[in-house]
Amino acid sequence: MITYEMKSGWIPGDEENELISEAIGKVIEERESAKAGYFNLPDDSKMIVTEVNAYAASSKPIKNSDTIAVIGVGGASLGTQAIEGMLRHKYPNAKRMIFFENPDPIRLSEKFSMIRKEKTIFLIVSKSGTTIETMAMFKAVIGHFDLDLKNDDRERVIAITDDGSPLCRFADHFGLKTYTIPRNVKGRFSTLSAAGIVPLALAGYDTCSLLQGASKMVRRFFEGNEEHIALKAAFMATHNGSYPMNLLFGYSNAFFSFNRWYKQLWAESLGKIDRCGNRTGLTPMGQIGTVDQHSILQLIMQGPRDKTVTFMKVKDFENDMKIPKVSLEMLPGSNIVSGFTFGELIDIECDTVCEMISKEEIPTDTITFDYLGEENAGEIIVYFQLLTSLIGNMLYIDTYEQPIDEPAERQIIEKLKQGKEIK
Amino acid sequence: MITYEMKSGWIPGDEENELISEAIGKVIEERESAKAGYFNLPDDSKMIVTEVNAYAASSKPIKNSDTIAVIGVGGASLGTQAIEGMLRHKYPNAKRMIFFENPDPIRLSEKFSMIRKEKTIFLIVSKSGTTIETMAMFKAVIGHFDLDLKNDDRERVIAITDDGSPLCRFADHFGLKTYTIPRNVKGRFSTLSAAGIVPLALAGYDTCSLLQGASKMVRRFFEGNEEHIALKAAFMATHNGSYPMNLLFGYSNAFFSFNRWYKQLWAESLGKIDRCGNRTGLTPMGQIGTVDQHSILQLIMQGPRDKTVTFMKVKDFENDMKIPKVSLEMLPGSNIVSGFTFGELIDIECDTVCEMISKEEIPTDTITFDYLGEENAGEIIVYFQLLTSLIGNMLYIDTYEQPIDEPAERQIIEKLKQGKEIK
Repeated sequence: MITYEMKSGWIPGDEENELISEAIGKVIEERESAKAGYFNLPDDSKMIVTEVNAYAASSKPIKNSDTIAVIGVGGASLGTQAIEGMLRHKYPNAKRMIFFENPDPIRLSEKFSMIRKEKTIFLIVSKSGTTIETMAMFKAVIGHFDLDLKNDDRERVIAITDDGSPLCRFADHFGLKTYTIPRNVKGRFSTLSAAGIVPLALAGYDTCSLLQGASKMVRRFFEGNEEHIALKAAFMATHNGSYPMNLLFGYSNAFFSFNRWYKQLWAESLGKIDRCGNRTGLTPMGQIGTVDQHSILQLIMQGPRDKTVTFMKVKDFENDMKIPKVSLEMLPGSNIVSGFTFGELIDIECDTVCEMISKEEIPTDTITFDYLGEENAGEIIVYFQLLTSLIGNMLYIDTYEQPIDEPAERQIIEKLKQGKEIK
Repeated sequence: MITYEMKSGWIPGDEENELISEAIGKVIEERESAKAGYFNLPDDSKMIVTEVNAYAASSKPIKNSDTIAVIGVGGASLGTQAIEGMLRHKYPNAKRMIFFENPDPIRLSEKFSMIRKEKTIFLIVSKSGTTIETMAMFKAVIGHFDLDLKNDDRERVIAITDDGSPLCRFADHFGLKTYTIPRNVKGRFSTLSAAGIVPLALAGYDTCSLLQGASKMVRRFFEGNEEHIALKAAFMATHNGSYPMNLLFGYSNAFFSFNRWYKQLWAESLGKIDRCGNRTGLTPMGQIGTVDQHSILQLIMQGPRDKTVTFMKVKDFENDMKIPKVSLEMLPGSNIVSGFTFGELIDIECDTVCEMISKEEIPTDTITFDYLGEENAGEIIVYFQLLTSLIGNMLYIDTYEQPIDEPAERQIIEKLKQGKEIK
């Protein structure tokens, strides 16, 4: 279970209430018209889980593997990393996941040296099937590991992409196993599609429960039982000018990759030109407590009042590691922490910082996981996606497009062509 | 060598020129009056290197170790991580560094399981010598590894702290090796003090060259040969209202931890109440290219014009990994990247994105490393510290204080006391 609490004390007026109903209506319409497809993933992807598990049980290379290498950028990778980060500690026997997400030669070399081909399944994930960096890294993987796609290594490579994309045609040509992402699901909304479910299921994660948690959240929202999401969205959207930033302050390293996913979702969905031609958007920030409270708290408290702060915390870490009652000579002050569990310490710190900030009338809200579990991981993904859709509608922008991505890619290709001529 | 280029085309007027001379004057004064001590670290810490190397050569536990565990939070850890991140790939034989920086029970358990006491040197780093989380983690380390500080394990533990701090007295009591941080050097400015130099030297990094690079930058700045730093500072300070955020966009995973260090330096130094009683500050953001350009670029280009963007890139990755000329059937578009090195690809992408942003008249500047080397790593640390000092003076704030840290700690202790009573 996850509980959501807004501390701003904000009560919407008539105008905001209208904005809320309108935005909820639009999200319902997005679902019904299939403009956005992510709402159906929690249910639709259950079939993928069944399929993947059956395939994995029958595939020798998968059975013999201990590593899942995911070659994918942005939406093809961050959501999977977010879920792995929240759950990894519960799966000591899961296959190791290695993410090729940046064409940085130093880290690529490091990752290559960590991989033995015979023990690895390579997933190439690209919605468009043409992403420049993904293709470059895929070629390097083929070259480095001397992958024979026609024969020996065919079962070692799985493609995840849009139906009919160039990558899809490529996979068909070689007879590679392929899973497709629905056309109306954009990369950053695709975590619960094959893009995230296939790698997580292959690695051994309980993706059924993950989807279950997500499905329940979708149902509750459309039944009108999660009104707090629209309320928060309305606050964010109407205070866009005074609070242009939202800081997601996760009190556990388990949220480290989640922060990165959230930043992508928020930045690419909400940084847009609105229907009146105005630049609009909210800037996402991600920090980790307690460590970052030693810096960002100073800026929040005494810097400009331009941020809302969302705390994300875990009630029960299911880890009873205690701060031992070691009494340190000459360090009597340090005894105050003795006897607490680390979970209690981090919880107390989070509450204290949240109280300090709220007292200053900085808008905060708190998201509390009862524990880090699969259902909660699924729920929180959908929660942030719904929140994003609602804010997008309230800002009168197209949440699902990314008009800059394609021209950027085109210009990069242009430069590559010029570079080629010089070479 | 690092080159610095501002692309805003901004020319300071008389008023800004006055602000610049005044701020440079104040930084000179800060150095002369010893208000801030970090300017002298590059020279003063050379002695520490000599000392550490001699000690390491004579200490059996150090000679037998393969792991350096650093127990420290914020300024006691982030700078060391930043440098390790930029240089690690050059040191395949360096000792492994493990950072205990967050009292998160899940990650603590993971890290404990990675460590063998017989092979590890534990550094406890706390300037005040009382940091709650550091002390809690230190106690857990003592308990978990059953450290006998009176006898067998005394040489395994090294303290780095202020002279005369409670931790210093503790270390003296047990006869632990201790290195001190100068009183007038704050945590976030202490990377080149014992706080960073001792762990890096013990791990095997060439800290002499690191300090050398830093020292040259300090000398050049005070000789008046790095005027671009003050120019950039003036732009940031005078455009504080229109551009409240600076995004550091590092085009290499080697800058991942550097981003975290920069965010701490910037947030805690520049988020302050100024001499007129106004909240002021600049909000730091850190992203990694190329991966994050698939999201943040959308926000930068079409969202509100509230960010300056600093690109940080590497000219020569000293890694000739090429994208092989594998021709992929049905994926003809992907052939454009073939034959480039990954270094060239990432470079072309960075330049394209920078051009796209500059064309929109969003202020950008570019920091180009000729390669990732020790001298450059030292220089870039000092560069950002000097930039921070200059901006701080231009905003009329006290760059070096952190007035929120202590009250926060006090309130946490208060809560811990209440918690103890309930227990």
